[in-house]
Amino acid sequence: MQRKYLAKIHVTLRPSVLDPAGVAVQSGLQQLGYDNVEQVRIGKYIELIIVSPDEKKARQDLNNICDQMLSNPVIENYRFDLIEVESQTGVF
Amino acid sequence: MQRKYLAKIHVTLRPSVLDPAGVAVQSGLQQLGYDNVEQVRIGKYIELIIVSPDEKKARQDLNNICDQMLSNPVIENYRFDLIEVESQTGVF
Repeated sequence: MQRKYLAKIHVTLRPSVLDPAGVAVQSGLQQLGYDNVEQVRIGKYIELIIVSPDEKKARQDLNNICDQMLSNPVIENYRFDLIEVESQTGVF
Repeated sequence: MQRKYLAKIHVTLRPSVLDPAGVAVQSGLQQLGYDNVEQVRIGKYIELIIVSPDEKKARQDLNNICDQMLSNPVIENYRFDLIEVESQTGVF
């Protein structure tokens, strides 16, 4: 039997990697008067549905998918949560 | 006294909005052999530190920041969690 899992994936820059987009946002916020904001870092948030016989296989596939397509392992980390869902459930 | 809050912000496309990048990723995954992946949607995940006298003021500022700079309210939703942190805590 196939099960459906909703994956909530966070892809974030490694701590040692500079984030020019984050710096730009912080600078823009300062110009808007928000000088109380620090350390803006911008990552990706991905939701998808994965169909798999069990959670272990779904996790294996997701690790491969994150390594191969969703993240750049040289500069990014990823983590994900898996939730088993009913057939009709969708992502955001 | 000023407090420090770590904000974890998710910016996601509204459900009615098409996500061409998500469709492209799904199509790429299919070409890699992952035909068990559906409904890929790509959003943003932002972390920042906000300094504020209390949580209420931090939330007010963050709502304005999300509306004005981090999201496009026409096509995107946002949500955030706030965690009070020690002075030396950093984002990802």
